[in-house]
Amino acid sequence: MIDNFLSWSHLESALAVTEALGVLAFTYSGLVVAARKGLDMVGMAMVAGITAFGGGTLRDILLDHRPFFWVEHRYWLWVLAALTLAFVLLLRNHGNLEQSTHAIQVSDALGLGLFAADGTQMALNQGEPAVVAVLMGMITAVFGGVLRDIVCNDIPSAFSDREAYALCALAGGWTLVGTLSLGLSPTSALILATAVTAGIRLLVVMTGFAMPKWERARRSAQP
Amino acid sequence: MIDNFLSWSHLESALAVTEALGVLAFTYSGLVVAARKGLDMVGMAMVAGITAFGGGTLRDILLDHRPFFWVEHRYWLWVLAALTLAFVLLLRNHGNLEQSTHAIQVSDALGLGLFAADGTQMALNQGEPAVVAVLMGMITAVFGGVLRDIVCNDIPSAFSDREAYALCALAGGWTLVGTLSLGLSPTSALILATAVTAGIRLLVVMTGFAMPKWERARRSAQP
Amino acid sequence: MIDNFLSWSHLESALAVTEALGVLAFTYSGLVVAARKGLDMVGMAMVAGITAFGGGTLRDILLDHRPFFWVEHRYWLWVLAALTLAFVLLLRNHGNLEQSTHAIQVSDALGLGLFAADGTQMALNQGEPAVVAVLMGMITAVFGGVLRDIVCNDIPSAFSDREAYALCALAGGWTLVGTLSLGLSPTSALILATAVTAGIRLLVVMTGFAMPKWERARRSAQP
Repeated sequence: MIDNFLSWSHLESALAVTEALGVLAFTYSGLVVAARKGLDMVGMAMVAGITAFGGGTLRDILLDHRPFFWVEHRYWLWVLAALTLAFVLLLRNHGNLEQSTHAIQVSDALGLGLFAADGTQMALNQGEPAVVAVLMGMITAVFGGVLRDIVCNDIPSAFSDREAYALCALAGGWTLVGTLSLGLSPTSALILATAVTAGIRLLVVMTGFAMPKWERARRSAQP
Repeated sequence: MIDNFLSWSHLESALAVTEALGVLAFTYSGLVVAARKGLDMVGMAMVAGITAFGGGTLRDILLDHRPFFWVEHRYWLWVLAALTLAFVLLLRNHGNLEQSTHAIQVSDALGLGLFAADGTQMALNQGEPAVVAVLMGMITAVFGGVLRDIVCNDIPSAFSDREAYALCALAGGWTLVGTLSLGLSPTSALILATAVTAGIRLLVVMTGFAMPKWERARRSAQP
Repeated sequence: MIDNFLSWSHLESALAVTEALGVLAFTYSGLVVAARKGLDMVGMAMVAGITAFGGGTLRDILLDHRPFFWVEHRYWLWVLAALTLAFVLLLRNHGNLEQSTHAIQVSDALGLGLFAADGTQMALNQGEPAVVAVLMGMITAVFGGVLRDIVCNDIPSAFSDREAYALCALAGGWTLVGTLSLGLSPTSALILATAVTAGIRLLVVMTGFAMPKWERARRSAQP
């Protein structure tokens, strides 16, 4: 149905724009964390690159797939260097890190959704079973940020902030697997899965939802 | 001799049980560290998985071997999720982390032994030279915990606790290489190597042995 | 020109000596950091190995290239173990970590140069485009230290010390690409690229050059 509604070239463009928004949002998050940690310009560029491309690269290593995204689309490497430079200049003049504007949150959610769906799709295409493919999609979408935090000497926020970031990615991945098995076209399934992940993610952000967390019983602390 | 003593199906079962005990012990250690670090449920499941399967996955990446253990035996992914859930529920009600019961220490030692021997064996089968194969066995057995500590923002305990954890794995690996070259059957060599590693490991735990450590000479502190 | 000046066997020897100096300097830096962090002997050996061979291993994983340097030249594994032992004994008797003698700085700069040039060359040989090849050269030369710092629970000094370590490697890589495209022989290009990286690196060390760093504007701190 979606396929009839939109022409192919429109779809291609929409996916390319979504991808670019996602990469930019991830790059930005890498730059912000790196700046906060006091990294130099080289470190900022590296951490930005690891955040944007680390998840997909890890998935490709696990799936033994080449070439990497940033080898095939290597203009991104130049974009990354330019963005780092622009970011540093901006910070010098302003010094304020607007981290959570709506535009960035939406871009990040779209990136999370598209990368999870795309990673799942690629793993399915290589013949991986559903549960592994969904996991690969999650790794694609989430492990860039995980690697960013490891390099920056933090506990990964995706593992500790109780915002269920990885669960959103898993939900999208299962949506893709389910709708494909119901006979939906790959493109429609990709769009639906992206929307599911991004939708849940934005709901979490808007509602301030937090996963239950284990609290150590502090009996001895009671008088 | 061992081959004659036990039938093949008994051996298969014994190895499968040992493997399961090892995976469970490693999973448990991941859950305990993750809980202590205040990770959320997603983080606990991820760290548990990295602890249990990270060493073997790293070895397979280094050896360029596919599929991974957790892809071939992917029911473990569901077991892992279920264990994380059970662990969280248990903690909510009890709040005590019994980390070092004898059952867990023995399981961990058996896992260390089997994974080291198994990893060495697999590397030998791929034509790696002895010293590389033994190193791969050690990586299989030890680097799950190393990755766990890196993700949890700790210095790897295997590198700093002076308990010679990695040396136990290396001892088992060399036992495998040595006994194979003396003509022992692969199964007997595997069992012997597992026993050597596990035995030394349990001796270390029981005796409280600690490797010598470098202490900075503090001459200037003397009056 | 260089090719005519020196015979091939002299070149081979010079490159082998440079390589050995580089590996030794990287090993030493790993041992120093590990000792400072209070790692035990196993941890020191592991961190030394990761520092010396981690960058090349990561490059080989990214390029899907086997065998690794330390598998092909596995006598280095024994050298590493022996060096760790010698280092620990030395520390016990002296307790002073001379980290920045001129000999070590020059060796480190030579290693940085050769590994960057060599990594770039290998990636070009595998058909990678120039920008990717130069990046692979940088990863070869720099990421051993990055992994060392991650394992030792530090923010990578290459990302934060403002000494432009990675930029020196990139400069050498681009020198290699440029001179090759101008028709220089591979050996001459390798030597030139190594000299460029090592030269800039030593200049940085001698002049105390520091990259500009972003400073958060502290307006509110003003009275």
